Amino acid sequence: MPGQVLYEANPPPDASHLPDELLKLRVQLDVSNALSKEEVQAIQRFRRAADYIAAAMIFLKSNILLDKQLSHEDIKPRLLGHWGTCPGLVLVHAHLNRIIKKTNLDAVYVIGPGHGAPGYLSCLWLEDSLSKFYPEYSRDMQGLHRLITKFSLPGGFPSHINSETPGSIHEGGELGYALGVAFGAVMDNPDLVAVCVVGDGEAETGPTATAWHGYKYIDPAESGAVLPIVHVNGFKISERTIYGTMDDKELVALFSGYGYQVRFVEHLDNIDNDLAGSMEWALGEIRKIQQAARSGKPIVKPRWPVLIMRTPKGWSAPKKVHGEFIEGSFHAHQVPLPKAGSDDEELAALQAWLSSYGPKELFNPDGTVKPEVVEGVVPDNDDKKIGQRREAMRMFCGLEVPAWREHGADEGAMVSATGALGTFLEEVIRKNPSSFRIFSPDELESNKLSAVLKVTGRNFQWDVASRGKGGRVIEVLSEHTCQAMLQGYTLTGRCGLFPSYEAFLGIVHTMMVQYSKFVKMAAQTKWHTHIGSLNYLETSTWARQEHNGFSHQNPSMIGAMLNLKPTFSRVYLPPDANCMLSTMAHCLRARGYINLVVGSKQPTPVWLGREEADRHCIAGASVWKFASVEEGVDPDVVLVGIGVEMTFEVIAAASLLRQHAPQLRVRVVNVTDLMILGPEGSHPHALTDTDFYALFTTDRPVHFNYHGYPIELKGLLFGRPGLSRVTIEGYREEGTTTSPFDMMLCNRTSRYHVAAAAIRGAALHNAKVAIDAHEKISYLMHLSQKDRAYILEHGTDPEGTYERPTF
Amino acid sequence: MPGQVLYEANPPPDASHLPDELLKLRVQLDVSNALSKEEVQAIQRFRRAADYIAAAMIFLKSNILLDKQLSHEDIKPRLLGHWGTCPGLVLVHAHLNRIIKKTNLDAVYVIGPGHGAPGYLSCLWLEDSLSKFYPEYSRDMQGLHRLITKFSLPGGFPSHINSETPGSIHEGGELGYALGVAFGAVMDNPDLVAVCVVGDGEAETGPTATAWHGYKYIDPAESGAVLPIVHVNGFKISERTIYGTMDDKELVALFSGYGYQVRFVEHLDNIDNDLAGSMEWALGEIRKIQQAARSGKPIVKPRWPVLIMRTPKGWSAPKKVHGEFIEGSFHAHQVPLPKAGSDDEELAALQAWLSSYGPKELFNPDGTVKPEVVEGVVPDNDDKKIGQRREAMRMFCGLEVPAWREHGADEGAMVSATGALGTFLEEVIRKNPSSFRIFSPDELESNKLSAVLKVTGRNFQWDVASRGKGGRVIEVLSEHTCQAMLQGYTLTGRCGLFPSYEAFLGIVHTMMVQYSKFVKMAAQTKWHTHIGSLNYLETSTWARQEHNGFSHQNPSMIGAMLNLKPTFSRVYLPPDANCMLSTMAHCLRARGYINLVVGSKQPTPVWLGREEADRHCIAGASVWKFASVEEGVDPDVVLVGIGVEMTFEVIAAASLLRQHAPQLRVRVVNVTDLMILGPEGSHPHALTDTDFYALFTTDRPVHFNYHGYPIELKGLLFGRPGLSRVTIEGYREEGTTTSPFDMMLCNRTSRYHVAAAAIRGAALHNAKVAIDAHEKISYLMHLSQKDRAYILEHGTDPEGTYERPTF
Repeated sequence: MPGQVLYEANPPPDASHLPDELLKLRVQLDVSNALSKEEVQAIQRFRRAADYIAAAMIFLKSNILLDKQLSHEDIKPRLLGHWGTCPGLVLVHAHLNRIIKKTNLDAVYVIGPGHGAPGYLSCLWLEDSLSKFYPEYSRDMQGLHRLITKFSLPGGFPSHINSETPGSIHEGGELGYALGVAFGAVMDNPDLVAVCVVGDGEAETGPTATAWHGYKYIDPAESGAVLPIVHVNGFKISERTIYGTMDDKELVALFSGYGYQVRFVEHLDNIDNDLAGSMEWALGEIRKIQQAARSGKPIVKPRWPVLIMRTPKGWSAPKKVHGEFIEGSFHAHQVPLPKAGSDDEELAALQAWLSSYGPKELFNPDGTVKPEVVEGVVPDNDDKKIGQRREAMRMFCGLEVPAWREHGADEGAMVSATGALGTFLEEVIRKNPSSFRIFSPDELESNKLSAVLKVTGRNFQWDVASRGKGGRVIEVLSEHTCQAMLQGYTLTGRCGLFPSYEAFLGIVHTMMVQYSKFVKMAAQTKWHTHIGSLNYLETSTWARQEHNGFSHQNPSMIGAMLNLKPTFSRVYLPPDANCMLSTMAHCLRARGYINLVVGSKQPTPVWLGREEADRHCIAGASVWKFASVEEGVDPDVVLVGIGVEMTFEVIAAASLLRQHAPQLRVRVVNVTDLMILGPEGSHPHALTDTDFYALFTTDRPVHFNYHGYPIELKGLLFGRPGLSRVTIEGYREEGTTTSPFDMMLCNRTSRYHVAAAAIRGAALHNAKVAIDAHEKISYLMHLSQKDRAYILEHGTDPEGTYERPTF
Repeated sequence: MPGQVLYEANPPPDASHLPDELLKLRVQLDVSNALSKEEVQAIQRFRRAADYIAAAMIFLKSNILLDKQLSHEDIKPRLLGHWGTCPGLVLVHAHLNRIIKKTNLDAVYVIGPGHGAPGYLSCLWLEDSLSKFYPEYSRDMQGLHRLITKFSLPGGFPSHINSETPGSIHEGGELGYALGVAFGAVMDNPDLVAVCVVGDGEAETGPTATAWHGYKYIDPAESGAVLPIVHVNGFKISERTIYGTMDDKELVALFSGYGYQVRFVEHLDNIDNDLAGSMEWALGEIRKIQQAARSGKPIVKPRWPVLIMRTPKGWSAPKKVHGEFIEGSFHAHQVPLPKAGSDDEELAALQAWLSSYGPKELFNPDGTVKPEVVEGVVPDNDDKKIGQRREAMRMFCGLEVPAWREHGADEGAMVSATGALGTFLEEVIRKNPSSFRIFSPDELESNKLSAVLKVTGRNFQWDVASRGKGGRVIEVLSEHTCQAMLQGYTLTGRCGLFPSYEAFLGIVHTMMVQYSKFVKMAAQTKWHTHIGSLNYLETSTWARQEHNGFSHQNPSMIGAMLNLKPTFSRVYLPPDANCMLSTMAHCLRARGYINLVVGSKQPTPVWLGREEADRHCIAGASVWKFASVEEGVDPDVVLVGIGVEMTFEVIAAASLLRQHAPQLRVRVVNVTDLMILGPEGSHPHALTDTDFYALFTTDRPVHFNYHGYPIELKGLLFGRPGLSRVTIEGYREEGTTTSPFDMMLCNRTSRYHVAAAAIRGAALHNAKVAIDAHEKISYLMHLSQKDRAYILEHGTDPEGTYERPTF
């Protein structure tokens, strides 16, 4: 049966036809004596202890130190977890601690294969980093018993590394982002090394495949370094991996092309010397590159080190059970002996497997660890231990956020909101020269934020114009890389901004959800204190596409935000430049949120003066009296604009209604903080019903002209009383490369459609309008068709379309 | 000012420190005489004509053949489009047509830089492929005038390549997917070559960075080939590109590592010979590899060719204007002379630029093309022309879909829905050996679909166990690659399935939206006839996480589907194995849809017999009489389950209510087709209000127990009358690695919560229940806490939790 062949313990890859000279590119080291015999023994004791605990975590509910023969009753009722990657994670952890202890290195450990939580947690317990945060996980029998028996159970540690796991800055779920996060973590942390394990499964993802270029954006003078360790164990869940089938020539060529010096770590008989020697070499190379840059002589295209570590999947698990390979095969991915609780052969295999680590030699009968297991490996200084790094403790000190008002404009001006924001960010950068960055997929200029380039540069080390000059701006055409770097930067106590074309921010939708899960759990964990907010700016929206078209129209990131926990999800659609500045200043000050700000880069009217803008943004929404009839008192109908262009159309509609339906009392409302709209209590910003009624009345028809997909707003409003009077229009997937106003027409968000909706709504409730409603609506539709015809003929909007409406 | 340096026409990359021997890996060819002088001249005439038209499309609204001196009045009022990539697209188009004409090659052209539509459309017009589909774009003055003057205007071609563009199988918007689409297109098309241009901006994206491995999944015996052409022009919107700063050694190492033979095409003085010779070499290499495989001797790790084409950005645009570089700089990205309509210097530069192509030598005064411009380049046979390939005409012939019932189960059985589906798909594959494929991110086994491996294999050419054996299954841990390949496969007339963990399908959310935009426009284009549906299967959902946890809980793809055009968006949540089979059989038969099917891989009860299941799936929802009181007639309350586990809890709640509130008349409804719920007329499947009332009554309380995020369902229901009686629970971002029932408890979707909601709802409407409602609800919450305590203590659900409820 094709496809069901079992790989005899993962055969070596076929030889490629690449020339053998490529093999010279492999870094050759004499590692035979990297460690003394005693050091090797110390490392191996630590590894045996950690591997033992990790395996026990997956299986045992009692008899955790094998005090007696295992019985079926000792086995957990549900066997959950992933063994396959654990021994590799343990191996790296042990060696990283060893070198930290020896050299006083500052290092964080970023783990791509986060499903191998047992391999990480067991090491944290051994280095006594768990009990600092969770006293119940003390380094004694009680703590060990809890660690092993509660793992993957309610109340215990979950099966994946997350923010509850000390030392972690990366959610161990969706694969692909560890490397980019590691790059973000070392930025502006010049003495830090992020050791990042990338699994060969994860390596198949696109985000990882491009993240290898991340070093091209690391200035070794101002930032630390990432030491990537590619863990090639040959299998993902059930299929061989790409890297697992590539020979040395292919891998060395690939990584040399990415810009690295490649060292294979693969001598299974002597793995500790191999890894120790290789890590020392790698850290030496890193220091050389950094020293050159810091002495003002940056190396052109420095070749940073990468380690490719080949060890068998689930190394040290049973070789074969029921005649099938376990170790070195995909059967070791999750639980190698899934029937250990009922099958005698599997139970015996488990007994033999666990015994092979020699727990009696590692642990005292009271569950404490024998000193020689940890002495040679674990750093003496708690602050240096992997599980207790301050970088992973969310120690955000805040940005110095300048007053925004001098960057604002007077009411009545025509200003590009992002242009004004650019000058504000210029000052933010000046005041925060090493704790604020902008990550952008090559859209800084296009989004009119280029004022920041007056005080800083783009940080692109492969470009002679930028090399060695630092720079707060990273522009790489990979939203995934931008997001990953921003996450790493934010979670290690700094703050940044991710400006993006609206349509393409959704590329990182699921990454953002992963991040939100990390943040949610962090907020529930006492020892996580402060992080900055993660800030998105969406511009070049569907409503103003200019050079682009239908493919560039997708406001779906708002919907993604609405599904997050309300404690940290914020969505703002500031209607003008002053509100944009007020909002962004708030976002940069605020802590722990995910902020999505949607605005325009085009010059648009400044509706609110500076003080008014602040008040409006604090309230989240208000009646815009200048556009309403008699300041909006006692309206027949309420028109609501959400978003820059939507609000303009609402105001234009109010102006039209003055002409064409003067008897209609129109109230104009702008909502800048979307979260005020949900039912009372659903979100910290949600208006009370009383305040909701004050804005929207209790019974008058309300028409929302909304920037996003209507269904999102409908879902948000659901639960507010009296919704049958509410109508909503928004982006309905209509569009092409066309004029801005044509986009309004084809999505039914134009002033004509708004005005018609007002009349239609009012007519249902108000006899004085009902009389000629049909006629008026027909006339408005006639006007819309006239404009459409003009656009078709001339290719532009009718003159005056975007002149400020008068009242 | 750092970051604002203008690159003097894109300096060559700095030399890397890689050894010079790597340069030997570059393919050396003598191309000096690849073409005769006449052939070079013919190609150059074609290129000049196409470049001329492309530039004119961006600028001119009149005087399109420069019959007189250009004036400001000849310039379009809004200048839109992207020039930078056009000359490169034209260059490839010309050479591809030439070689098609010469060798009768079957080729499609997949364009990554789809924003360069003018460069593609101008060639299509020259090869007279536009008029076949759009008679108004005839190859004469009328057609040329329309092409040039209407481009990027309403009613004309949009600025990006899309499904309205003949020959296209790829939406030219979001970058990163062209290469994966090309691989999908050639699968099971053994004689086809997909020539795929990848821009150096696009090359920075993750999806492209991993798509280079795509060849590892192409069996040269059964499938055609992709010829990738990396167009390195050095800049993206405003920053240099990564590839633009990599030297030959870096690029040749990288691509050799990916598995390619690398040929640089970069002799600007002799580019036509260079490209012609290089393409002939590349096609020769492709043939060698294919012939070896087809004669039963597949080459181990064949090194497929790649061309790296270095030409200046916006090649042939003005060198300098206003003292700033244009050609070869980022200023050429969009409109190189943005003020041509008002600035005299720019107008003069435009005049000189356009004149430099010599339009008088290329076009007759009547707008027809001089024969010598096209004769040597354009294939004689229409079917061979790039713009008229049948593969791009959506000629789906349908699958042979077997009857599903023999794979179904009897009512009352416990069956894994995906397990049953696996045996059905096994038969689908047997009946459709070369027109159906499965693309999966390494989750086939985990999702219990592995029955298909009985009749087919995994297609992984780098693995000795799979090489040269074909295989319908591709398992690569890149959702982006899976999606791109599936798109390419589907849009060229075949059909496939993308099974995924629920939480990670959202990784391709925006790709799916891009695809949906392509499909929407295709449906509006008469000459697009048939495509199969694009089918997703989500399983391993948040409700049954097993080995995983919080990071693996994200049902947001449903929300993404709800924002699509209702004409092709379909979401199904079949409640059992028979409904899963009935649904999937429908999806494979259906045409042009995007189908999202959400189901369980765990054994769960079969609630409906085979015939009943078909009836239920056709209706989309029905009253489940067996679980209702008196068959659901005249209910006090309606309980609705949507999704496998949600429905189980509803049924269990109905059973609980029989015990604890026997006086309550409960109706149980299951919704399997989500789209029935939206307001009448909102979707082709939306129930009429009458049918909606028949299921949900007009005034009884209704509680939805919903698989997705509640806000989506709220948005969907908005507009149905009488929503104040509706309550909804669903996934609320609560969870960890825990037992299945604990997930229900913490998201308030458990039977206890459902039963309590029923009593609470009924109490508001029904005095006979109200009396002791509070007491009953308290008791139900007590039961839920008891179960929670049990789970915390034992780590598993109480025994019997998933036993079939009795009535």
